[in-house]
Amino acid sequence: MSQFQRLTIAPDQISGSYIRLTPEQQHYLWRVLRLQAGDRLLAMDGLGQCWLVAVEPPDQMQILEEQIPIAPTELPRPVVLLIAMPKGQGMDDIVRQATELGAAQIMPILSDRTLLNPSPQKLDRWRRIAQEAAEQSERQFVPTIGEPQSWSDALTVWNAETCDAYLCEARGDRPHLLQKLLPTRGASPSTKPVAIAIGPEGGWTDAEIDGAIAAGYRVVSLGRRVLRAITAPAAALSILAAALEQDMPSS
Amino acid sequence: MSQFQRLTIAPDQISGSYIRLTPEQQHYLWRVLRLQAGDRLLAMDGLGQCWLVAVEPPDQMQILEEQIPIAPTELPRPVVLLIAMPKGQGMDDIVRQATELGAAQIMPILSDRTLLNPSPQKLDRWRRIAQEAAEQSERQFVPTIGEPQSWSDALTVWNAETCDAYLCEARGDRPHLLQKLLPTRGASPSTKPVAIAIGPEGGWTDAEIDGAIAAGYRVVSLGRRVLRAITAPAAALSILAAALEQDMPSS
Repeated sequence: MSQFQRLTIAPDQISGSYIRLTPEQQHYLWRVLRLQAGDRLLAMDGLGQCWLVAVEPPDQMQILEEQIPIAPTELPRPVVLLIAMPKGQGMDDIVRQATELGAAQIMPILSDRTLLNPSPQKLDRWRRIAQEAAEQSERQFVPTIGEPQSWSDALTVWNAETCDAYLCEARGDRPHLLQKLLPTRGASPSTKPVAIAIGPEGGWTDAEIDGAIAAGYRVVSLGRRVLRAITAPAAALSILAAALEQDMPSS
Repeated sequence: MSQFQRLTIAPDQISGSYIRLTPEQQHYLWRVLRLQAGDRLLAMDGLGQCWLVAVEPPDQMQILEEQIPIAPTELPRPVVLLIAMPKGQGMDDIVRQATELGAAQIMPILSDRTLLNPSPQKLDRWRRIAQEAAEQSERQFVPTIGEPQSWSDALTVWNAETCDAYLCEARGDRPHLLQKLLPTRGASPSTKPVAIAIGPEGGWTDAEIDGAIAAGYRVVSLGRRVLRAITAPAAALSILAAALEQDMPSS
């Protein structure tokens, strides 16, 4: 099943044994993918449900099979990326790579040194990118992208009570993220969600780091080199996903 | 010293206690960075040497101090990225992120499913990107970027005789890269260079994988999700750098 094209649908598009296509989906299937009547694909609701369908131009798909079993591609524990928004178009790349690397939620943070205050259109754009990236990387779930919020508000939701929380700091003399993630011998492994916070170009302010420590965050390093704001979340999520998955079979 | 701008120079630009600037460097210092006479920066030869200098428009810099000690930012073992070139502009992003993440060498591979045959101008462009990324990420060394070569030629150089070699395969049921990198209790840690091979959009062919196995490569997974050709090298190098650095202090 893994080689079929995937299309994310909303549950209210299903009507009996048919799925009605939105105008955007029609454009994508006929103009971009150039599918023909009868071609098959996987329709997914982004919440773990999957249907095998045959396309019927101009505006629907017929459900051939329900509850298609697909290889699990989600991380064993939900990972939340708390990302201080970089300037320019950087968030597009961050959302795309974070989705590929398995993030369950992407929460844009308005940190003290964040310059961007995104429009609602931006948020829609990031959600479209997440959906496309989830289809490409064969994920069952599309990560949710929250409304931008302040760091102090974020700390009331993601803190040591609710998750294993890490904040990445460049240039500090901090232990490495991987070192903190590997299980200590004898300790029972955590089953909590994981939150990982990445700062903006200029880094977190001291007050932001102090607030995180007070909320139970462990402050960690991503290594000795200074990473761009776009590369740091990809590095952090690669290491996190590897640590969470490394003792599981890969498929 | 870490907050100074950095500029990569060639050893033959040094003349006594002065460093002569190329026209490109003059443009960069005066027009891009807008430096003024007397401003200081770090000149680095990309081979581990570093000088504190004061700029003197229009065409030179005076050496103020030699052998500047800078925080080590290189990985404890050299890492070679063997990268089957993706289509389009993908190599630009790969070279930039691989440099930030600490690669010592980037070797473009003409794999069976590689479509790109890059011009010499492309190679120059990638070398410029590597130099800029090395300056930004505060590395002592600029990764070397080799001439594109066939996979069979690459295997004669990078194989189990010369390095610890890994080939990443998507969709296979392979052990995770991180699992293979973590030291086995009781075993003495390797000191060899590490080579990591990443395939093109369509993946390696079976013959290419067989060739790698015959040359002593371990075939590994980067996790359960399908990564784009741009994201896979960033994920692999993030995991590699973390495994090599995680038991060292971060600065």
